Amino acid sequence: MENTNKYYAGIDIGGTKIAFGVVDENRKLLISRSIPAGAGRPFEVIVKEMADTVKIVAADAGIGSDRIAGVGIGVPSTVDPKTGRVVFANNLGWRDLDLTGEFRKHWDIPVYLENDADCAALAESMEGPAAGKNVLVITIGTGFGGGLILNGRIFKGGDNSGFEPGHSALVFEGEHCTCGLRGCTEAYTSVTALIRQTREKMEVHRDSLMWRECGGDLEKVDGKTSFCAAKKGDAAAGEVVRDYIEYVSAGIANLVSLFRPQMVIIGGAISAEGDYLLEPLRKSAGSRIYAAGILPMPPLQKARLGNDAGIIGAALLGAVPPSPSVTPAGGGSTAPEMGNAG
Amino acid sequence: MENTNKYYAGIDIGGTKIAFGVVDENRKLLISRSIPAGAGRPFEVIVKEMADTVKIVAADAGIGSDRIAGVGIGVPSTVDPKTGRVVFANNLGWRDLDLTGEFRKHWDIPVYLENDADCAALAESMEGPAAGKNVLVITIGTGFGGGLILNGRIFKGGDNSGFEPGHSALVFEGEHCTCGLRGCTEAYTSVTALIRQTREKMEVHRDSLMWRECGGDLEKVDGKTSFCAAKKGDAAAGEVVRDYIEYVSAGIANLVSLFRPQMVIIGGAISAEGDYLLEPLRKSAGSRIYAAGILPMPPLQKARLGNDAGIIGAALLGAVPPSPSVTPAGGGSTAPEMGNAG
Repeated sequence: MENTNKYYAGIDIGGTKIAFGVVDENRKLLISRSIPAGAGRPFEVIVKEMADTVKIVAADAGIGSDRIAGVGIGVPSTVDPKTGRVVFANNLGWRDLDLTGEFRKHWDIPVYLENDADCAALAESMEGPAAGKNVLVITIGTGFGGGLILNGRIFKGGDNSGFEPGHSALVFEGEHCTCGLRGCTEAYTSVTALIRQTREKMEVHRDSLMWRECGGDLEKVDGKTSFCAAKKGDAAAGEVVRDYIEYVSAGIANLVSLFRPQMVIIGGAISAEGDYLLEPLRKSAGSRIYAAGILPMPPLQKARLGNDAGIIGAALLGAVPPSPSVTPAGGGSTAPEMGNAG
Repeated sequence: MENTNKYYAGIDIGGTKIAFGVVDENRKLLISRSIPAGAGRPFEVIVKEMADTVKIVAADAGIGSDRIAGVGIGVPSTVDPKTGRVVFANNLGWRDLDLTGEFRKHWDIPVYLENDADCAALAESMEGPAAGKNVLVITIGTGFGGGLILNGRIFKGGDNSGFEPGHSALVFEGEHCTCGLRGCTEAYTSVTALIRQTREKMEVHRDSLMWRECGGDLEKVDGKTSFCAAKKGDAAAGEVVRDYIEYVSAGIANLVSLFRPQMVIIGGAISAEGDYLLEPLRKSAGSRIYAAGILPMPPLQKARLGNDAGIIGAALLGAVPPSPSVTPAGGGSTAPEMGNAG
């Protein structure tokens, strides 16, 4: 019997790797693979590799290119909804690039572009207890990204250019951020920030277990170094983790006070720490929201799709109707008229 | 000829005064008056005075109580949309109070409750170049409040409890805020904060012109003290104003990066400073938004309705349909279904 199902390919561009996958009509991820991002190479080279790889991955799952209905791409960037261009990807050094057009030079297929964290949020918002809720999904890895799903749609802000949860100042005129600003939430809460905080603490605690965790080499410190040593009882590592969690909780509380989601989901590399991270995070964020104890802190849960959320969400872009949360700019007056009600 | 027009009464509860007004069907404010807030008096006494006063104000405009179609009340508080209760008004010390029910003990009329800054935002969003745009209105007075109008509706967040722009941390674990948290935007950007900043600077600059502006009495420092002395060339006052504007611009930039409004409007007592405030504010906020120079800083304008915005917006609550920006909690699943699109 011939298989006439449709499939959707997703590409998730991260700071260190690019992930590929194919989903079926039931949102099931049939295959996934990742390659190093190879950041720093010419844009055109990276995009050609992406187009080649996604075809190979589909073929490896026994799905011919002709059975792929569309390719969705999640980019760690602001995306222009009118042109499909990458506006500004601070962690990749990309600025004003025609990713859609460049991709279609290699594969003439419908291409959908969206912010990577928005893709992950879209996928997570359809899973388990999140389904049907207004959900804030925060993805903590190289950056502190996120997506807000309101009424099943990606919240894109008042001019459709998106929602950047990591680049509001949390520490007025604090640490320099890769985006060019200072004191951004991302500059204190990303895994990159955690690595910086870990190294700083190690330099003043030469006897910390963290040195053993990284083989005595500061260059080998990663996002797990402090957590691993803290779990073994190292006091300095415990301080790193505790302080880091306070920053993350403050960043999340800021967003809850503004957006009041019905659920908060934490994804990205850091979510691998599970309840060791999430339990103190719930407690701290709950005490930092506006009207704490009066208005509820929404349930805070670990992402269910793990690293696959970005791929699945990107693939879903081709499967769900486009969903701006607001009328595009210039869409005409929608202000209420007294006459209608008077 | 008998006048059969409908009229709408508005009450705007502020930290220091309560303002009253009546508008006609064309949003025109026919009369307004204000009385001292008398904070600290029993809630019931304040509400009775409000009901008595709004009737008197209407009568003074020649409008009998029977011609008032409804009373809208703007409260500096989170408002529960299901019960019409005041949830938490940090600047008044009110918590979980049935303002609607208490008011109707004195006047049995439709009563509409909304956050005061949301009321002001609703009124401002219908005026001049803001009409039809997605507008962020920031009201700076006793507090740093605001309202976001998306598609002509008040943005109420993911659980309809509202949007609190002043109580996200701008200075991680900084100054104590009246809301109980630390480092809130409001704690650096309200006129109350400006007065604190003015006094602090005066204490280290005993020769500053600011002392003359307040008659040598720290208790008489107000939101104009530093601005007046700065305009006369006083260096210390200039520093107060410059630093204050940096805080305000950072607070506004944080919101622009998250919400990307098409226009920002500044209202409240501070807006009386006009371009002396707004010009440096535009420049600084424009440099503090995410992707500055790539994504646009929306036009930043002075509010057009001045102190009347809160009264007019409150009155309009009774004239425009209720407008939650999202489906109320429990409104059912709205997540997209693959099946519909596959």
